Amino acid sequence: MNYCFGIDVGGTSVKLGLFDTEGNLIDKWEIPTRKENGGAKILSDIAASVKDKITEKKIDAAQVCGVGIGVPGPVTPEGYVPVCVNLGWKDIYPGRELSALLSGVSVRVGNDANVAALGEYWRGGAQGCSNVVLLTLGTGVGGGVILDGKVVDGVHGAGGELGHVIVNPDEPLACNCGSHGCLEQYASATGVVRVAGRILTAKPETASVLRETKDFSAKDVFDAAKEGDAIANEAVDTLCRYLGLATANCALTIDPEVFVIGGGVSRAGSILTERIEKYFEKYTPLLKIKAKFALATLGNDAGIYGAARLVL
Amino acid sequence: MNYCFGIDVGGTSVKLGLFDTEGNLIDKWEIPTRKENGGAKILSDIAASVKDKITEKKIDAAQVCGVGIGVPGPVTPEGYVPVCVNLGWKDIYPGRELSALLSGVSVRVGNDANVAALGEYWRGGAQGCSNVVLLTLGTGVGGGVILDGKVVDGVHGAGGELGHVIVNPDEPLACNCGSHGCLEQYASATGVVRVAGRILTAKPETASVLRETKDFSAKDVFDAAKEGDAIANEAVDTLCRYLGLATANCALTIDPEVFVIGGGVSRAGSILTERIEKYFEKYTPLLKIKAKFALATLGNDAGIYGAARLVL
Repeated sequence: MNYCFGIDVGGTSVKLGLFDTEGNLIDKWEIPTRKENGGAKILSDIAASVKDKITEKKIDAAQVCGVGIGVPGPVTPEGYVPVCVNLGWKDIYPGRELSALLSGVSVRVGNDANVAALGEYWRGGAQGCSNVVLLTLGTGVGGGVILDGKVVDGVHGAGGELGHVIVNPDEPLACNCGSHGCLEQYASATGVVRVAGRILTAKPETASVLRETKDFSAKDVFDAAKEGDAIANEAVDTLCRYLGLATANCALTIDPEVFVIGGGVSRAGSILTERIEKYFEKYTPLLKIKAKFALATLGNDAGIYGAARLVL
Repeated sequence: MNYCFGIDVGGTSVKLGLFDTEGNLIDKWEIPTRKENGGAKILSDIAASVKDKITEKKIDAAQVCGVGIGVPGPVTPEGYVPVCVNLGWKDIYPGRELSALLSGVSVRVGNDANVAALGEYWRGGAQGCSNVVLLTLGTGVGGGVILDGKVVDGVHGAGGELGHVIVNPDEPLACNCGSHGCLEQYASATGVVRVAGRILTAKPETASVLRETKDFSAKDVFDAAKEGDAIANEAVDTLCRYLGLATANCALTIDPEVFVIGGGVSRAGSILTERIEKYFEKYTPLLKIKAKFALATLGNDAGIYGAARLVL
């Protein structure tokens, strides 16, 4: 039996998975992400954890065929990471460094959202499709594009940065990226909360359960919308409209078979995919056969599955 | 010496090119597009013209390695064309039909804009780049996407339909496709004329040379803009702003190396690429390394070059 590791590096924790070469997840665990000193310890912590697991599982080093790793930032086709804001990394080849720490084992690196898309394509909500776009609606909005079964990293590592496509250039508020009107400003967990807050302010006469909820969350907004709350409903509708617009423009560019919606916000379920699809239809009269919409199924494991797929 | 044919089927004329297998254009000519009876004669006219050329050039049929053909409509990866509005075609496999008319020679079909992109990638303004997006600004706006040297046709044949990405959902006027605020409504020759007309109406006090020009053209608008005409300048700026937005969103999806601007409107030259690039920069603060912008160089021959490339 041979093995590989799939690793998903996040800003708070690193998720690790041990897989056999059939792609079965044998074990998964987490370690904290130590971001101090520009994230200098992250790769050595990962290497130590991988070595511990190899010892624990009595695996021979020669049985490890590779390590895949997803990182939260742009990755060029050469594996170069110019910057990872959430980790403190700058000007780094994480694959080369991790490989050196693991006695030269083959390591492949990808952007975390692209890698998650690969996971959903391989073992999740997009199985059986070779042309897939994943949108991960969490604190931010991540994106991943798979064409012909291959991740589109992009020439400069910015492939699938769908959270920052601009859906409303007139937005006065700036996005974290410095732009105005990015998808992420409306379709993330923080985005839908902010949009709901705006509507509450703009419509002081309209009753809403959200007015009585201190520091309401994205889940509160979706729950209220499902109960028929007008304000919450409008916020959810804004989120779905902008997602419909962004997916329509994406379909008119690369025409995938399926859009997969994942991340914490996607737990809202079919209220989300059905409404996005309604707007997608509206914005694509040109397309006689339309892409499908599906919910992601791997949850937080999409990243480790996709990372393993990088080396299998 | 072996040969191939590259054919570009347009609504008014069919352009044909004879190439050697090194990709050198040996001869080019045109025949009219007979659209009557649902375009039933188009493929037999093409076959007759190809046979005539083979006879004229004393080529042995065995020396013809293939025929590539670009058509103005969606083409699925299987070569199926559900509809070609401009030709009257419906439910057709033009490659199979043309092959049958040419004694079984290999025929490959692509969407005309995608095929033109392939031409510019192979022999034109995008040589040396494997990841290219072409925007053809003519009566409408066509688009073509090349990733890793391969045309992205899309699962349903709608890859590269960049003329219909929505850049202004609030546009009251409908596009030909039925949508509102498509790129084509602002960035085509007809679009920039309409936008200039709108600005003339909205600003009756502002002097403009366009007021004295009956039925002014896109070229008139660009010429006036170059002379400092405020109204014309605003129309050109609108065109460039929306092209900047569309290319920015495209870069955040597939991150190509170069955007190539072609079609009649691109004769305006660097005034166009420089202004588009200015807006592209504005809309992509996330991208530390940016795509380049270049003008197309093959003009009306991009289609026959790209079609030849389909079979070489």
